Amino acid sequence: MQASNSVGIVTPQYVHIDKPLHLISGTVLNSYNLVYETYGKLNPERSNAVLICHALSGSHHVAGIYADQPKNVGWWDNMIGPGKPIDTNRFFVIGMNNLGGCHGSTGPASVDARTSKPYGADFPVVTVEDWVETQALLADHLGIEQFAAIGGGSLGGMQALRWTLDHPERVRHALVIAAASNLTAQNIAFNDVARQAIITDPDFCGGDYYSHNTLPRRGLRLARMLGHITYLSNDSMAAKFGRELREGKLSFGFDVEFEIESYLRYQGDKFADQFDANSYLLMTKALDYFDPAAVYGGNLSAAFRVAKADFLVLSFTSDWRFSPERSHDVVKALLDNNANVNYAEITSSHGHDSFLMVDDYYHQLVHAYMNNIDL
Amino acid sequence: MQASNSVGIVTPQYVHIDKPLHLISGTVLNSYNLVYETYGKLNPERSNAVLICHALSGSHHVAGIYADQPKNVGWWDNMIGPGKPIDTNRFFVIGMNNLGGCHGSTGPASVDARTSKPYGADFPVVTVEDWVETQALLADHLGIEQFAAIGGGSLGGMQALRWTLDHPERVRHALVIAAASNLTAQNIAFNDVARQAIITDPDFCGGDYYSHNTLPRRGLRLARMLGHITYLSNDSMAAKFGRELREGKLSFGFDVEFEIESYLRYQGDKFADQFDANSYLLMTKALDYFDPAAVYGGNLSAAFRVAKADFLVLSFTSDWRFSPERSHDVVKALLDNNANVNYAEITSSHGHDSFLMVDDYYHQLVHAYMNNIDL
Repeated sequence: MQASNSVGIVTPQYVHIDKPLHLISGTVLNSYNLVYETYGKLNPERSNAVLICHALSGSHHVAGIYADQPKNVGWWDNMIGPGKPIDTNRFFVIGMNNLGGCHGSTGPASVDARTSKPYGADFPVVTVEDWVETQALLADHLGIEQFAAIGGGSLGGMQALRWTLDHPERVRHALVIAAASNLTAQNIAFNDVARQAIITDPDFCGGDYYSHNTLPRRGLRLARMLGHITYLSNDSMAAKFGRELREGKLSFGFDVEFEIESYLRYQGDKFADQFDANSYLLMTKALDYFDPAAVYGGNLSAAFRVAKADFLVLSFTSDWRFSPERSHDVVKALLDNNANVNYAEITSSHGHDSFLMVDDYYHQLVHAYMNNIDL
Repeated sequence: MQASNSVGIVTPQYVHIDKPLHLISGTVLNSYNLVYETYGKLNPERSNAVLICHALSGSHHVAGIYADQPKNVGWWDNMIGPGKPIDTNRFFVIGMNNLGGCHGSTGPASVDARTSKPYGADFPVVTVEDWVETQALLADHLGIEQFAAIGGGSLGGMQALRWTLDHPERVRHALVIAAASNLTAQNIAFNDVARQAIITDPDFCGGDYYSHNTLPRRGLRLARMLGHITYLSNDSMAAKFGRELREGKLSFGFDVEFEIESYLRYQGDKFADQFDANSYLLMTKALDYFDPAAVYGGNLSAAFRVAKADFLVLSFTSDWRFSPERSHDVVKALLDNNANVNYAEITSSHGHDSFLMVDDYYHQLVHAYMNNIDL
């Protein structure tokens, strides 16, 4: 039984693109596949399209379920559906798996037509700019000249920001949630530890583990355990796990003792079974590289000069990965350009993960903002 | 040339203890060595002894240099020496390597007399309480009935706290710096990721890498890289490294690109060459287990009821590993018992590592406190 406000059963769709893609790295990808899902209907004016960009471990499966996998619910299902904050009775919503990912769009685990083997370490480094280009190509394919809105949380919010700079005419509203205009040294440091965990795993085999019949599970597991710490807040971990012991007493050994250890190891194991290590490396690099102000000598206000969209910028009080201060910097730079900006700092104890959680105030804000968009 | 306020050339000393040590874990260690250094002179009244307890990666080499290693300066040399905050013209200062360590006291890399092989994974888990017992035995050996002061930063501060509970008559002053009364779930989580990095390194060999002629360098390197992030503050990393690129431009690969990556990998490599992985595991476990309030149902005030010492409690504003709030909890519990407490929150951008740094205000506070101790 699906809830009445679910988009219901959804089916991924594919587009094969044969036009060479010139990546920011200088590499050219001659052809590739993109996988995407859509929810709601494109109106005759083609003015109600909304693109949802995913974060590090997300995918095109943003809402609904699959016919053969009723428990595989889209990652932002609480936000998108009939009557939900991003209302599919009104909007035509698109989710796309980013190039380099491991959920259907061409990535390191895909077969390279030139060699008939998986790309592995040969898959080029991709950037947020590259993703925006492929998303624009998908929009062309779907006959969408301009999006009513483009949005996302974390790395997804960075893509929404980038859209307003690279295709200012093609996006009317940007929803930039729990994001920042670039990573801090601390953010990069956490990413590098995660990458080093993967790369130094002997089973990584220089990225060509596919042909060695190995998987760098240990490294990917560590990367995810570490990532998880940064997605949660100190307070939410204290409230949920505290110093609770799994067996009620200390065991004086190195197996799981504290509940938090059990939780993290479980999350790490689960992720290592599902995600491709090379894709994880690529996603973290795209995060590190994102820095629209860089070509303006660090002047973010100058970077936003070309933007024409209206903005909803949201941050969460307990998010220490992309703290509210980082959103303030974005808002300031937008206001310097007289952009139409709505900003709210939402009180939440859930840390960076807050953007994925149900919170009445948060959802009402998004709902109100989306309802005010003219179609 | 040594500075005139250096304790100069120092020589480690050893004591072999043949009396069985009953550890908190239930294990008994029949005999073991302790390595220690002393600076200054014990006065005829034996009333001027100060014990300095080390943190995770520290040792007994607290001040001075070695005759054959003039660059090997003690880890708290800026704090201890003639005319320094802990003035060796006035105090007889002792540093001891904790049991389970890898700097001379018996630890996992030591040969187990029963098997004539390194202990490896068979070395028992040790706790802060166990360390306090061995430190008390060393004091007995040196003829010190009561310490003028016992102090340390981080895990060292925890040992000072524990002394005031386990041997309240034997310590007149406790210096508890950048410490906490227990670890949070987030602290434990970081420790567990570090431990899992070591334990899942194939070269760990279940802890018996000594006999396999391997070293879990990858795991220990990752553990140290991660640890380093938590020792620094977001602000200090931003100020020192920011988003600076090593080669001035992006390379679109997975070698070092950002300066912060270079720094962390260097720190990780250096540590992996010097520290024993099994000791690292033990030190992090001792941190996790420390929780004097646990037997009082979490009531820290009840735990401190037996303490008789006076206290200097110091925290640093940018320390997010053991934040000032954690020190406030300690101060509150001490005040609940009408203890004599001096507390200061020191403005510093250096994060948890602040306790090791030179800061005039910080050093003046310690100096003034120590000068006021009656001998």
